[in-house]
Amino acid sequence: MSLLDRERIKLLSLQRIVAPELERFEAELATLMAVGTPLAREICDHIQQGRSKRFRPTLLLLAAKADGPVDERAVAAAASVELVHNATLVHDDFIDGALTRRGLPSVNRAWGEAAALIMGDYLYARALDVLCRRGLDDAVRQLAATTFLMSEAEMLQLESKFSLDVDEALYMRIIAGKTASLIEAACEIGASFNPRVNGHGAAFGRFGRKVGLVFQITDDIFDYLGDERRLGKPTGQDWEEGRVTLPLLASLRQATPAARAAFTAAAGGATGAAWKDLWPQVKAFVGEHGGVDYARALARQYSEEAKAELAPVAAGPQKELLAAAAEYVIHRLN
Amino acid sequence: MSLLDRERIKLLSLQRIVAPELERFEAELATLMAVGTPLAREICDHIQQGRSKRFRPTLLLLAAKADGPVDERAVAAAASVELVHNATLVHDDFIDGALTRRGLPSVNRAWGEAAALIMGDYLYARALDVLCRRGLDDAVRQLAATTFLMSEAEMLQLESKFSLDVDEALYMRIIAGKTASLIEAACEIGASFNPRVNGHGAAFGRFGRKVGLVFQITDDIFDYLGDERRLGKPTGQDWEEGRVTLPLLASLRQATPAARAAFTAAAGGATGAAWKDLWPQVKAFVGEHGGVDYARALARQYSEEAKAELAPVAAGPQKELLAAAAEYVIHRLN
Repeated sequence: MSLLDRERIKLLSLQRIVAPELERFEAELATLMAVGTPLAREICDHIQQGRSKRFRPTLLLLAAKADGPVDERAVAAAASVELVHNATLVHDDFIDGALTRRGLPSVNRAWGEAAALIMGDYLYARALDVLCRRGLDDAVRQLAATTFLMSEAEMLQLESKFSLDVDEALYMRIIAGKTASLIEAACEIGASFNPRVNGHGAAFGRFGRKVGLVFQITDDIFDYLGDERRLGKPTGQDWEEGRVTLPLLASLRQATPAARAAFTAAAGGATGAAWKDLWPQVKAFVGEHGGVDYARALARQYSEEAKAELAPVAAGPQKELLAAAAEYVIHRLN
Repeated sequence: MSLLDRERIKLLSLQRIVAPELERFEAELATLMAVGTPLAREICDHIQQGRSKRFRPTLLLLAAKADGPVDERAVAAAASVELVHNATLVHDDFIDGALTRRGLPSVNRAWGEAAALIMGDYLYARALDVLCRRGLDDAVRQLAATTFLMSEAEMLQLESKFSLDVDEALYMRIIAGKTASLIEAACEIGASFNPRVNGHGAAFGRFGRKVGLVFQITDDIFDYLGDERRLGKPTGQDWEEGRVTLPLLASLRQATPAARAAFTAAAGGATGAAWKDLWPQVKAFVGEHGGVDYARALARQYSEEAKAELAPVAAGPQKELLAAAAEYVIHRLN
């Protein structure tokens, strides 16, 4: 339990456990990103230069890790999961009109919107195509279902943009689709290549799903608390782009009817610059009505539930490592 | 051979042969398009109202047709192929800034660019997800490879926009990926469900590929000749959007060095409105240097080659029907 005892568990210490596998993953990903048309290669090079934390492949490889080296197919699947993740980032940045990503210009900014659209399609298609070519039909099935959930969540998010009528059920459905589903797939796919966890694949998936929920809730909290060092972006981005997230919707629920009515009277119907200008009021409202505390408590709860999902799995270093990964995510809040 | 003897073979007469299957296909497609988030359903409804010729599903069902009713799985695969086709149209219209599609406003125009991007992703993902759920792994493999080729071709097309340096090899690679690959997949997938054509699946695929090349070359010819009734759009669209197609590149090759130099001096380096304004000169240049005749001859050649691909298949009504489909495509030029 030494890892869990540390005050702040770092992703890096987890990555040391699967360091040889991550090295193989990097080689595989680099190969996949190095082919294609000249423009595709140029954009792939750029994406590769960004600082990705490799959180999803790390979880996949941790789930796949038994005694010996991780199965070659798990390494290939990890590369496909990262391709899908990159595809979603390229399309998301376009949707949000984001100018930077991982400290570099976004693809839409550097090469234009048409290139961003095609590049995302290209990465999605490549991820599934390479899995098909390797005959990894179960991973294909999982990633196809995941990409569908992700696009459905993007649609839900678009539908509810600039609306204060987002309740917790809708919020959870959106973050389950856009963030948790791919982490769920990573964990379940990883476990499917681990001879030690036969029959527990679904538990690993549920673990990943809950870790993913924690991951997104904490990100949404950072957008209120600010954490420029970690996220490299200012606060209020979600609000500015029209997304009402857990801290605000919880505050709206927890406020007195009078306070809620006053807030919605000020914000309801606002668009464009008027909506953006409301950010100081939004932040103050969330501060007054405990939305961040609520979100933090929910994240803690999901973090505990994530670890509980692994209860049926036999005790061992792997279970501890995944629990440490769940801790890493929640500890980002400390 | 009665079908082939008719002066103009109509797609409708082919569709009569698989009318019960097309009815089942329509029901399947309608089901797939009728679920999802409110916005997704709204956009799907709109897409369904457009006048699609159902060319790809017709070919798939013709390839799958033996003596009895076509295999249920072929009908499902036909619906997925049409979903992929719709996805590409939604993304293409966004890339081209198209305002209309099949006589209706384009998705990007009616709902905005973000919705068009997400809707395309949604349809791609849904196509593969439903095939996975039915366990149609071979069709999944084929469509995953196809969507990759399509996105690669889109990238090549983007890279060569507003450039006169497109040679025939590059042009063929682009149209093979963006148009022929999905028709190839439709024919090969269809044949895979036909108990009569065991072992000839690849020949059906090559047939479809060549039919697809003819299809795109004829479309590109229409952009010079004009065919408002059929295509519902004016001439010069390809040029306006920066695409140099076969009639022009063949004309550039066939022109005298002096004529070519004069043309490239006028057009080389032009962008924006200056590029667009060159259309009358482009059309005149193509008229003088036989580019349309060359393209027409190449389309005829591929049409013959398409039919020849079916030589190993035992003679029978199905072979005749597919030959008639190849004739339909080339007869659009008469």
